[in-house]
Amino acid sequence: MTMQMAPAWQTTAWLNTAKPLELADLRGKVVLLHAFQMLCPGCVATALPQAKRAAQVFAGAPLVVVGLHTVFEHHAVMGAEALAAFLYEYRIAFPVGIDAPGPDGDPIPRTMRAYQMQGTPTTVLIDAEGRLRRQVFGTIDDLQLGADIGRLLAEAGPADRGFTAVGATAAGSCGPAGCAIG
Amino acid sequence: MTMQMAPAWQTTAWLNTAKPLELADLRGKVVLLHAFQMLCPGCVATALPQAKRAAQVFAGAPLVVVGLHTVFEHHAVMGAEALAAFLYEYRIAFPVGIDAPGPDGDPIPRTMRAYQMQGTPTTVLIDAEGRLRRQVFGTIDDLQLGADIGRLLAEAGPADRGFTAVGATAAGSCGPAGCAIG
Amino acid sequence: MTMQMAPAWQTTAWLNTAKPLELADLRGKVVLLHAFQMLCPGCVATALPQAKRAAQVFAGAPLVVVGLHTVFEHHAVMGAEALAAFLYEYRIAFPVGIDAPGPDGDPIPRTMRAYQMQGTPTTVLIDAEGRLRRQVFGTIDDLQLGADIGRLLAEAGPADRGFTAVGATAAGSCGPAGCAIG
Amino acid sequence: MTMQMAPAWQTTAWLNTAKPLELADLRGKVVLLHAFQMLCPGCVATALPQAKRAAQVFAGAPLVVVGLHTVFEHHAVMGAEALAAFLYEYRIAFPVGIDAPGPDGDPIPRTMRAYQMQGTPTTVLIDAEGRLRRQVFGTIDDLQLGADIGRLLAEAGPADRGFTAVGATAAGSCGPAGCAIG
Repeated sequence: MTMQMAPAWQTTAWLNTAKPLELADLRGKVVLLHAFQMLCPGCVATALPQAKRAAQVFAGAPLVVVGLHTVFEHHAVMGAEALAAFLYEYRIAFPVGIDAPGPDGDPIPRTMRAYQMQGTPTTVLIDAEGRLRRQVFGTIDDLQLGADIGRLLAEAGPADRGFTAVGATAAGSCGPAGCAIG
Repeated sequence: MTMQMAPAWQTTAWLNTAKPLELADLRGKVVLLHAFQMLCPGCVATALPQAKRAAQVFAGAPLVVVGLHTVFEHHAVMGAEALAAFLYEYRIAFPVGIDAPGPDGDPIPRTMRAYQMQGTPTTVLIDAEGRLRRQVFGTIDDLQLGADIGRLLAEAGPADRGFTAVGATAAGSCGPAGCAIG
Repeated sequence: MTMQMAPAWQTTAWLNTAKPLELADLRGKVVLLHAFQMLCPGCVATALPQAKRAAQVFAGAPLVVVGLHTVFEHHAVMGAEALAAFLYEYRIAFPVGIDAPGPDGDPIPRTMRAYQMQGTPTTVLIDAEGRLRRQVFGTIDDLQLGADIGRLLAEAGPADRGFTAVGATAAGSCGPAGCAIG
Repeated sequence: MTMQMAPAWQTTAWLNTAKPLELADLRGKVVLLHAFQMLCPGCVATALPQAKRAAQVFAGAPLVVVGLHTVFEHHAVMGAEALAAFLYEYRIAFPVGIDAPGPDGDPIPRTMRAYQMQGTPTTVLIDAEGRLRRQVFGTIDDLQLGADIGRLLAEAGPADRGFTAVGATAAGSCGPAGCAIG
């Protein structure tokens, strides 16, 4: 189990937030960091929708979902203005930082380098004490991601959250969600 | 937060297991109990596949997935022989108990009555000490179910489990799962 | 291109229809025959939903969707009563015939044998003159099935049908279905 | 049924083709024209994948799939270079034309205006004689689109195409695609 502190984020700008987010300011909360590129198909089809769902499902929990735009290719067409249009059209409402360009023509941006990410999407879980607990490149099963979030939330505090059932049906009938006793 | 003990199961037969499962014998493990009917569309389309995924995702964790066939309608065509054919064709490999018929023509079987279930599917989470922690009628989001399992697993012990990424792509290219640094 | 006449159906009973359907009575209409078993996972997950969609999409066209319950295994638990419960719970409203049992202990029912089907699901297209035009065992892409239906409908008559767009959005905004000019 | 000739395309550049496509040169073939914007979520999630599937399913038929980038918003970030990166990352291999900008600051490009499109995605079907037969803004069901393509292909010629089944299973067993006779 990785237990080192998660590196600070190095960014040039933030969208969807009034002021820049600093990781150090998020102590006490579990942080789900989604590193993506707006022209990465796997990010658009799978990882960003998963991050949006996580933000909704854990809205009442001490969890913060943060996006990080880690562009390592096609830099010219994935600038801040393009990203802003993308976030607007895709209705992505959580804060998104723009990873700072690498030094001396390094195509890999600074935070991506600091976390040693292999590509996008990369999902990072940071616990309430700021420690890097998980980092995954690629697609993660919802049950698996949920379980790791649940474990970190359990460590963060005793608060508990109830399930919410979706689409319960009328008594005595079957619907898409199930069959109810009459 | 519900904290009473989960009622014992009252069954007439078990499939996919050499001997009947008793809840009391499962102390030390988190139990995911899936109550279903083989002719309930929501169970077949959503809940049973979710239970199968959970059994796979948490294969290394102290979690037991158990099915319970709680027939409260169409009793004549959902008997033990029909259930056995169903489990075989749908490749459901976890143990499934057949809920005992209710007394005196009560269409609701006994375990279903004891848990006060409202219909099928019903998902029940029982912690490692045998306490009923969650019970939901209908469809549950994977992230939400995962988080509750993760919390109960955290309570059950310190053991930790790493993510597994799916479908990582070759360096320098994008695939369905993501874009890899070259 | 197969052009022989489609064999007559040999059935013991029909559900979802006041009187038995005879193929010969359906001249002038394209017939989409879906052979299935209620405990065949591929039928339940894919082929039957496709048949239901086809019945909806081509509701105004000279197309008849017909189900055929071709049981060749687990006969004891897929009888008429079980099928009736299945059709009710799965909201399958088109007519479904029960294929007549084979002679002398042949597990393959008679219509299935006459059409030389290889298993379930099998999708059969019969043109407006009663000729067998397509027969496929397994899963068919919607675009492909649609194209073959469209071709047979074109042969059947000049009538034309317009598209219906789904989910148009408000002017000047983007929704799940698209972005509208302001 | 609309029967006027489809307007000629007015473009500034083409990608994925050695030379510009002229509609007039495509007589004898059915044309599926997909108008989209690279930052339109409904295009990326639904319409472009549908166009890709159509190109595959009808690879042997006299059907040409053509993309048209009809940008009417966020012009600055959806230029030719951005589109090229998008097509590369999303593995879109069919020819894509860039709609010519409207005159005098009209945000609606010229071809989009000539076809009186309402937004993106817009799917257009042009028959083998160059007539505009269908035009739909928004999402179209695969069965419906397939049927209209099938009808136009039937008009275009007698050639016929067989189904291809997907995922047939081993004899005597059930798989995701179906159950095979033993």
